[in-house]
Amino acid sequence: MSFTAVELIELKRDGKELPPEGIEWLIAAYTKGSVPDYQMAAMAMAIVLNGLDVEESAIWTNAMLNSGDILDLSDIPLPKIDKHSTGGVGDKISIPLAPLVAACGVAVPMISGRGLGHTGGTLDKLESIPGFSPRIDTRRFREILAEHNLVLAGQTDTMAPADRKLYALRDSTGTVPSIPLISSSIMSKKLAEGLDGLLLDVKTGSGAFMQDLEKARELARIMVGIGIESGVETVAVITDMNQPLGYEVGNANEIRESLAVLRGQGPPDVTELVLAFGEVMLELGGVGGGRDRLLEVIDSGAGLQKLKDVTTAQGGDPAGLDDPSLLETAPHEATIEAPADGWVSRCDARTIGVAATRLGAGRERQEDEVDHGVAVTLRAKTGDKVSKGDSLAVVRYRDHDRWESHREHLASAWEIATTIPNLSDLILERIDRSTI
Amino acid sequence: MSFTAVELIELKRDGKELPPEGIEWLIAAYTKGSVPDYQMAAMAMAIVLNGLDVEESAIWTNAMLNSGDILDLSDIPLPKIDKHSTGGVGDKISIPLAPLVAACGVAVPMISGRGLGHTGGTLDKLESIPGFSPRIDTRRFREILAEHNLVLAGQTDTMAPADRKLYALRDSTGTVPSIPLISSSIMSKKLAEGLDGLLLDVKTGSGAFMQDLEKARELARIMVGIGIESGVETVAVITDMNQPLGYEVGNANEIRESLAVLRGQGPPDVTELVLAFGEVMLELGGVGGGRDRLLEVIDSGAGLQKLKDVTTAQGGDPAGLDDPSLLETAPHEATIEAPADGWVSRCDARTIGVAATRLGAGRERQEDEVDHGVAVTLRAKTGDKVSKGDSLAVVRYRDHDRWESHREHLASAWEIATTIPNLSDLILERIDRSTI
Repeated sequence: MSFTAVELIELKRDGKELPPEGIEWLIAAYTKGSVPDYQMAAMAMAIVLNGLDVEESAIWTNAMLNSGDILDLSDIPLPKIDKHSTGGVGDKISIPLAPLVAACGVAVPMISGRGLGHTGGTLDKLESIPGFSPRIDTRRFREILAEHNLVLAGQTDTMAPADRKLYALRDSTGTVPSIPLISSSIMSKKLAEGLDGLLLDVKTGSGAFMQDLEKARELARIMVGIGIESGVETVAVITDMNQPLGYEVGNANEIRESLAVLRGQGPPDVTELVLAFGEVMLELGGVGGGRDRLLEVIDSGAGLQKLKDVTTAQGGDPAGLDDPSLLETAPHEATIEAPADGWVSRCDARTIGVAATRLGAGRERQEDEVDHGVAVTLRAKTGDKVSKGDSLAVVRYRDHDRWESHREHLASAWEIATTIPNLSDLILERIDRSTI
Repeated sequence: MSFTAVELIELKRDGKELPPEGIEWLIAAYTKGSVPDYQMAAMAMAIVLNGLDVEESAIWTNAMLNSGDILDLSDIPLPKIDKHSTGGVGDKISIPLAPLVAACGVAVPMISGRGLGHTGGTLDKLESIPGFSPRIDTRRFREILAEHNLVLAGQTDTMAPADRKLYALRDSTGTVPSIPLISSSIMSKKLAEGLDGLLLDVKTGSGAFMQDLEKARELARIMVGIGIESGVETVAVITDMNQPLGYEVGNANEIRESLAVLRGQGPPDVTELVLAFGEVMLELGGVGGGRDRLLEVIDSGAGLQKLKDVTTAQGGDPAGLDDPSLLETAPHEATIEAPADGWVSRCDARTIGVAATRLGAGRERQEDEVDHGVAVTLRAKTGDKVSKGDSLAVVRYRDHDRWESHREHLASAWEIATTIPNLSDLILERIDRSTI
């Protein structure tokens, strides 16, 4: 069948459904450059405003997936299960979770991303382990996965090139906030991993890209629908991101907190999410034992050992995992103090994420280097009782001027109330085959 | 003030109003190329789907107008009034109208366009007068206008270059059907003429670009609003375009029918529109006498003489205006016959316009040449009683294969009913300062 870009744009402009062959033609033509950016920009805006349904999103995703290489991991006999988060603040869940699940007998071919906006990225965090490299070729990716059930890599250039091109275009044409386009971007990269199952952690709240629960639910539903239509059993869990996860925000400190989880000494919220997600991943992999099995591999140290082994395999020095004081720490320390007596009624994830990013923990421009030693360590989170002058957070920073110019903004993340606030649930909803 | 294209696109994507300085910055940056096509394409789609209000449309129009030269005709002492049609089939109204109004003492600096899609263009029709050239420079434009109160020209390259660039982009990005973008495109060109008043003939019905009355009314309201906000007294008249105007469709034949109007022997519908529009233009110019004055310049031959004088001034041979048999005629003739006895219940403007275009009276591609001699002469229009075998139309064509392949399509324009059909009004509504 033959199409023109204009007729496809007109269909979506008029709120009609795009034919499957039309989507395939468009993505292929855009990847090879015969459909120019200006036509794709008009299409992207028509999609932002008129949407794509689950079937169109699945076809769009698969067309982007098929624009590049897809890993064939069929020679690895274990179930291959990955987890993806839509992004949050203090969200180090993948780092303890993946080794624990791998230690239980599930293969985890994890391909992660870097920090985006005010959110941190798993790759940036892993790179605070000296020598650790997420850049590994496909051959080595398979070898490490086959040997350790686990590999922690970055996306390669040959995976979903259509997505990379479209992602850059969306960024410069105001067409980022489209649930179908966000879904297909995430899923085209995840499906290129050759998975059997996928767990999606869809964040909602101030620190999430989808602040609104209804939108988070829609995103979760479309991604689960795309996964299942593509033959990958997919489960989404919607979780709260109104305040940071755990107490640490900042790359090396998030590795420290992840190690505490692997030692059974992690903060309750991070530990709870790791166990809840671990259960779902074992279930997706058809591996029994559930939460008890996960607690066993924490107690036995098998999870921590898994992370050390993979760190070594990926060029990193595992010494920092035994002695976290070897990981980087920024030279200066400052404290944010409670301005009054009372209960913390807000500890705002977005404000803390933005401040940490501006202090150097994240990137303001794509070409910026991340400072692994910068960190915000929370001393009081929502619901905690504080007295005036108590420490709300300890900040590790490198540059005095930067700190002075962001101190006030960071301090504005906390609100102190005179009554005990309501606490929101951490895990809000599960969306899977039975609920979409 | 400083803007980025992305923030402006995001505003319109989210259904918000664009700031005036933002619109001015965007159009200037797009004209000089610092805002690329892909950003303007996303903006155009956001406007197609979320609209621009009258104020935004006026600012958009003026920004496009200011991207190029604006005629300063202030040294010409007469009121300067032009007329624009949104395009129809058999719509030769400007050709008799402009000379008649000029003969009454109004200056008409008319800048017209070429045929677009299934509709004819005034310039294409005028060029069927041997030697006639609409390409004249600004100096000569003023001279002819000063001497004859009339000039019949095409757009110059220096007028509204932003519109020319955006028009081409819209054509290739599915962003043509936007009432604010259509309005600003038309008005940016018209306002560059340095007018005191403007009459807009907004067509509705099958042969119009706005087939729906409600949309035609919206287009008329926005254009009148833009004109008035820009200081040019603007009146729109919504007229019926379900069947062609007059009996002639095709360039040279439309000149012949225009000459008949100037001689007082025109078909009733064309004559009526010319007189009604003439009255509005005299009113806009503050010139008294109304319809009686227009009938006088028909009777005296002053209108016809005006067209001859301007033809001579623009390089044309006026002989064809005295003896229309000197104008081109395609060599072959064929007839469409009534398939049954009854009343013509439909004589479809769009079908006839498409068929005439494909026979060569218009362009299928921008680079095509128009065949001035091709014509469809209607013998029966809506409401006429016909017997089986009567001629519905006589066709003049050049190419047998083309004629054979479009004969059936052309014949499908007529429907014959067994009862007398209702006739629609020719002039439907007037929209002006008092009604927007």
